Amino acid sequence: MPYRILTRKTLPEYLLAVPQIRDFFGTSPLEVEEIGDGNLNFVFVVRSAEEPRKSLIVKQAVPYLRCAGEGYALSRERMTFEIRALQGYTRHAPRLYHADEAMSLVVMEHLSDHTILRKGLMEATRYPRFAEHIADFLAETLFRSSSLHLPSDEKRRLIDRFNANTELCRLTEDFVFTFPYMPNETNRIEPECRKEAEALFADVAFKRRVLGLKYLFMNRTDALLHGDLHTGSIMVNAEETFVIDPEFAFVGPFGFDIGALFANLGSAYISHFYRGGGESYRTWLLETVEEVWKRFESAFLALWAQTPSSALLTPGYLDSGDLEPFMRDFMREILRQSAGFAGCKMARRVFGIAGVEEIRGLADPAERKEAMMRALATGRALVMAHDRIESVEEIVEIIGRA
Amino acid sequence: MPYRILTRKTLPEYLLAVPQIRDFFGTSPLEVEEIGDGNLNFVFVVRSAEEPRKSLIVKQAVPYLRCAGEGYALSRERMTFEIRALQGYTRHAPRLYHADEAMSLVVMEHLSDHTILRKGLMEATRYPRFAEHIADFLAETLFRSSSLHLPSDEKRRLIDRFNANTELCRLTEDFVFTFPYMPNETNRIEPECRKEAEALFADVAFKRRVLGLKYLFMNRTDALLHGDLHTGSIMVNAEETFVIDPEFAFVGPFGFDIGALFANLGSAYISHFYRGGGESYRTWLLETVEEVWKRFESAFLALWAQTPSSALLTPGYLDSGDLEPFMRDFMREILRQSAGFAGCKMARRVFGIAGVEEIRGLADPAERKEAMMRALATGRALVMAHDRIESVEEIVEIIGRA
Repeated sequence: MPYRILTRKTLPEYLLAVPQIRDFFGTSPLEVEEIGDGNLNFVFVVRSAEEPRKSLIVKQAVPYLRCAGEGYALSRERMTFEIRALQGYTRHAPRLYHADEAMSLVVMEHLSDHTILRKGLMEATRYPRFAEHIADFLAETLFRSSSLHLPSDEKRRLIDRFNANTELCRLTEDFVFTFPYMPNETNRIEPECRKEAEALFADVAFKRRVLGLKYLFMNRTDALLHGDLHTGSIMVNAEETFVIDPEFAFVGPFGFDIGALFANLGSAYISHFYRGGGESYRTWLLETVEEVWKRFESAFLALWAQTPSSALLTPGYLDSGDLEPFMRDFMREILRQSAGFAGCKMARRVFGIAGVEEIRGLADPAERKEAMMRALATGRALVMAHDRIESVEEIVEIIGRA
Repeated sequence: MPYRILTRKTLPEYLLAVPQIRDFFGTSPLEVEEIGDGNLNFVFVVRSAEEPRKSLIVKQAVPYLRCAGEGYALSRERMTFEIRALQGYTRHAPRLYHADEAMSLVVMEHLSDHTILRKGLMEATRYPRFAEHIADFLAETLFRSSSLHLPSDEKRRLIDRFNANTELCRLTEDFVFTFPYMPNETNRIEPECRKEAEALFADVAFKRRVLGLKYLFMNRTDALLHGDLHTGSIMVNAEETFVIDPEFAFVGPFGFDIGALFANLGSAYISHFYRGGGESYRTWLLETVEEVWKRFESAFLALWAQTPSSALLTPGYLDSGDLEPFMRDFMREILRQSAGFAGCKMARRVFGIAGVEEIRGLADPAERKEAMMRALATGRALVMAHDRIESVEEIVEIIGRA
């Protein structure tokens, strides 16, 4: 079917032509509500008129412009990569009912009892199973898309399926690794932060480190990444965790998603010097960083231990005891990458185009500036120290110093 | 045109249908001589019957099996990657007259006044311009296919054009990084070397390092590599240098081709303890290693200095003086990779399926064994030291200790 933009009116006919969706809704008429802002994607909730609790989400990408400085149009093909990533997730992702790359459209489980994690963290909610779930998600998706699991031909086919996500990788290259650290029209620098911004732009030692991390981002094919795993891409409640919106998915360095998560837990940590969470909630956030890493590491190593044959490993080459020091160094390298990317992700939120609500949304200008400077100092410290990090405790210590 | 295997008889008609070839030969009838062994590819010299000095090379890949242990068939699609790589070379490569991916066929300049470098080195011939030429080739091909030169979309398109060279990458993964260091039916272990082979197979510290280099080989997309740049893939005379046979081409780590070259210069060095070259020729070989690196480094940096804008660099991010320490670290990383890959490439030739003629061809069994053990010790030393190498002089020193 050639691409066309669906509306509240045309959606039911399209959906009811899909057997899996017809099976889901039965014979009831459908009610369609638009819930997205229509700027990047159209997002609809489709409900059974007879049983309104029976509902699905429909998301369609449109070839609209996103004005992020000059020359930034986003083609709707980004949905292709979101679909492919969602199709590969085996857990902690919404169930797919239908995906149509030609229509840039996906139909999935409606997560109606879940909150965006960023919002929950701003409200100082604790999610007791979040660390366990996200660590499991990260270990599964990263390990199973790596050369430690896939044979070498399947790894190349995976790269093939995501290599063309050029536009969204380019957004990251520009807006995570470049523009926030130099004069650029897309930055958002409040007048009272001008001096600090100029100091950052002149911090060539930091910028060289960021450049090295940017190079890594562009030239490593470790694993299939979500590509934008901030706390706005995660939906949670006390029992469940779901990763959504993997439109930035590509095959890149192991530490990038973990780093994004650390950075956003770090921003939440800093924000609770000014929000209601207090020291006890801040401590929970730091414990979450540590728990995410430790659970990730042990889940990743457990998967590895079950995988004697892969692109990397040929049975009989090294026995498991002799492999152990290699695995230890390997995990430390992932941790170091994660620290470095976490630092970039925190620092870029300060003056870059995309701030985080928990800090930019602070109403008091003095508090906001203080929080921004804390985030910048923490991001910088992570970037500067990342390649000497030995344990997650050192990352926790750096964030805790904020 | 659908694929069919051409023969001495059918070749002229095919060739004369190509305007550029018809222009080359004019109206003369053609004479065809088969010069390849027909095992992997058919290679023909096609000559003008009227002017026999007017000649071209025709190379066609055939879907024959290559018996390198069980399960190793090679599809003719390898020629696709050879064609694409040759089309990208701007110097020190044979001129292309015609390339036909569907026919797995290429027609190119006949290098009739040139010798295979390996053969020339065995005969202790000095090629005064070789280091200059190959350094220029390496700097041009590596720099211009990297994120230091290409914009990010073009880099992704380049990866796309070579990503499917799975089979030949797999050969390298197995025969450079795995099988030569473990019991495997493809190895060639002479009875008098059995003890040394067993010691190598038990050398887990070395094997872990090799595993790290294998991981790098599979998960870095620095630049378009030749992929098999040994001295048998280079044709030379006193004035000219040509790189041929890039069927292993893929986008991989910067140091892999440089390492292959260092390894083969190292094998030649060791062989001249037993061949006619003597100390003076051995010294020339070591000087060549040093000269190749120094010329490569300065040519690469000169290209970089002319390229303010690339996937990696955005004008205004860092000025050239502030970039300088980054460039220095970057070149050291390429050197370290090169040392590591050189070590694997030397070590794998000792017990692996593919030896090098200058050592395996030594007639005296005691000398042959001694040379093999020297090559193994040198390869091992390079692998073990590679990530602490600071200068090419250290590489020369390690080879010189052989």
